[in-house]
Amino acid sequence: MTGNMLVAQGGGPSMVINQSLVGAVLAAKASTKIIEIFGALHGIQGILDEAFIDLRAEPEEVLLRVAQTPSSALGSVRRKPTPDDCRAIFSILAKRNIRYFFYIGGNDSAETTNIIADEAERKGYDLRCFHIPKTIDNDLLCNDHTPGYGSAARFVACAIRGDDLDNRALGGVKIDVIMGRNAGFLTAASALARQDPDDGPHLIYVPERPFSVERFIADVAECMNKFKRCVVAVSEGIRGEDGRAIAESFSHEIDAHGNVQLTSGALGENLAAIVRERLHIKRVRADTFGFIQRCFVGITSEVDSNEARLVGSVAVQAAVGGKYKSGTVTMTRLPGASYQIDYSIAPLSAVAKHTRELPSCYINSEGNHVTGLFLDYVRPIVGTLPITARFNQLRGRS
Amino acid sequence: MTGNMLVAQGGGPSMVINQSLVGAVLAAKASTKIIEIFGALHGIQGILDEAFIDLRAEPEEVLLRVAQTPSSALGSVRRKPTPDDCRAIFSILAKRNIRYFFYIGGNDSAETTNIIADEAERKGYDLRCFHIPKTIDNDLLCNDHTPGYGSAARFVACAIRGDDLDNRALGGVKIDVIMGRNAGFLTAASALARQDPDDGPHLIYVPERPFSVERFIADVAECMNKFKRCVVAVSEGIRGEDGRAIAESFSHEIDAHGNVQLTSGALGENLAAIVRERLHIKRVRADTFGFIQRCFVGITSEVDSNEARLVGSVAVQAAVGGKYKSGTVTMTRLPGASYQIDYSIAPLSAVAKHTRELPSCYINSEGNHVTGLFLDYVRPIVGTLPITARFNQLRGRS
Repeated sequence: MTGNMLVAQGGGPSMVINQSLVGAVLAAKASTKIIEIFGALHGIQGILDEAFIDLRAEPEEVLLRVAQTPSSALGSVRRKPTPDDCRAIFSILAKRNIRYFFYIGGNDSAETTNIIADEAERKGYDLRCFHIPKTIDNDLLCNDHTPGYGSAARFVACAIRGDDLDNRALGGVKIDVIMGRNAGFLTAASALARQDPDDGPHLIYVPERPFSVERFIADVAECMNKFKRCVVAVSEGIRGEDGRAIAESFSHEIDAHGNVQLTSGALGENLAAIVRERLHIKRVRADTFGFIQRCFVGITSEVDSNEARLVGSVAVQAAVGGKYKSGTVTMTRLPGASYQIDYSIAPLSAVAKHTRELPSCYINSEGNHVTGLFLDYVRPIVGTLPITARFNQLRGRS
Repeated sequence: MTGNMLVAQGGGPSMVINQSLVGAVLAAKASTKIIEIFGALHGIQGILDEAFIDLRAEPEEVLLRVAQTPSSALGSVRRKPTPDDCRAIFSILAKRNIRYFFYIGGNDSAETTNIIADEAERKGYDLRCFHIPKTIDNDLLCNDHTPGYGSAARFVACAIRGDDLDNRALGGVKIDVIMGRNAGFLTAASALARQDPDDGPHLIYVPERPFSVERFIADVAECMNKFKRCVVAVSEGIRGEDGRAIAESFSHEIDAHGNVQLTSGALGENLAAIVRERLHIKRVRADTFGFIQRCFVGITSEVDSNEARLVGSVAVQAAVGGKYKSGTVTMTRLPGASYQIDYSIAPLSAVAKHTRELPSCYINSEGNHVTGLFLDYVRPIVGTLPITARFNQLRGRS
């Protein structure tokens, strides 16, 4: 089938989401089945507003520079299409003879893609409809990992490595709050910062294990006893025994998908205040890494960039190949000593709606750190960190 | 004079303070006048505790790796020596035959060095006593800029560049709180993020201009009107008309030099709440960059690294040269088209105690951004930022 193509980006930006966009555009340019290549601005909203740009008109060198640029170059949106939206979308698709649709994003974007694919089916409108995976949370089902995660994880690992060195210099307790509403993958990646056994992060708390303040205080006290300092990586999404996010009580922002905004600094500040008060430690500091985890310029993971580019082109190749009418690109790690990823196509429903959590085998039995298995999992995705070193005479001394 | 050397690090760490340390050690190894090279752990505290390591014993490749490592490899401290401390220090200096003393840090560390130099003079103890400049705040007097600033400024510029791209994708108002208690140099460096006229940061607030909430709200409203989004860089040290830091009311931590801890997330959250309420803008976010501004691994400014190395060796060369008994290394930018720095020695009293502010010529007349003169000043210190780009069709469109 020959026709025009539309591509859009949804959800939170990542450092490599434009690699996927450019991967899709370059693959489309290489196909004889795709005529026009439209980019919709701000996801679904841009389709509804018919706010399109002509991606064929962008020079190759601009495409390649945009690919290296963090955040969503077409703009993003957090909006799920209503039945009314769907009607409007199809009138625009038909008018523009769009036969290939690609939506780059997380599970919310996969759900949107699925709604459009279902509607096309129902209407008998011939449309190839594909989701291209992206999420720094790394919480898509059916994927070993997701483009965007490796670079955000690299930011977190570099930040914690530096912060641990900072904490060595001045001592006390440092609490760092890391993104990840429901999945602890990004927080867990902080463990890559550790080189020597006494390096931080000394404690890691993820949403997959109920967070107990009593247990946390005991953990910090034990660490202070052992190392005379303590660096803690904690997910913004940690929950109490009742399953409620501990940060929720400090924040009131809710996005269009019904998710509460957890990025405020209140969680870290409150945990710091508890440590200060309960353990009588003078120097207790908290930082919340915030949005720069997903958009910082200049520390992208090379593997992540390459994979993000590939998933974009794989989606387009699947769409023009004709074997699938719709689907999402999934990444599977092949067994064996060397790191290798297989790209294939799964039904949209397989990744829409539900998300996955950090597997139990990646969390230590105390629920306050990761396992060696997790480090083996995450290392190739993040790549080698910049070299840092300590004086020989200070290693093993706390 | 032949004798042993002692070097220590004070104050807040930076990304390149170990370059200065290693610069000093390498210069000392090259001099026949210096026998032992001791490193005191945690500044003045380590001298009092006689907690020394032997820096001659560290292999060259370890020194070079430590040089590239952020934070203070010897550990740091925030402590001013009392008269009792001074007595204790001199008994240790004499016992170890230390004749060369170097203290790397900001103006508090320069003051400490000055106290020790004065005491040596009074006691008739023959000591070469030098301060090696370091501060991410860039607030030392008699210096064009200070090692540590360029790399922290690079972090800020990269973070704001990414954050501005992120804000383009999802819209609304983003407020980023940047370090700098009294001087706006670091916050001002966020301006390097801007490439196109509609790029952020759209507003920059520094402690050198009284901060008015009314004026801030009007500025944000005007920016939203113009660009439909707004990225604000604000110094943690902004003050009201009464001269009191606005963040102070949200924080209770005070360090040994009597400085209030301003890094809590409260300032950003409170400004965000005001914008949300007053301007009825739905998406308003705040981040506080926190400690990673000064210790992040992997984005050091090359110029800053090189200069930091140099000030360390210049201090040692001045000390062994015999022309000066004490002093601090100052950096002067030579006039002319190409960037060039002259290193010389000034009296310790010239940089101790007092600090400098961002000059008026670097702040625009509205007090909400920087001038082109500032950009000319800061660019060579920070270096070229990583390439980022937008689609041609979206440039100039907001």
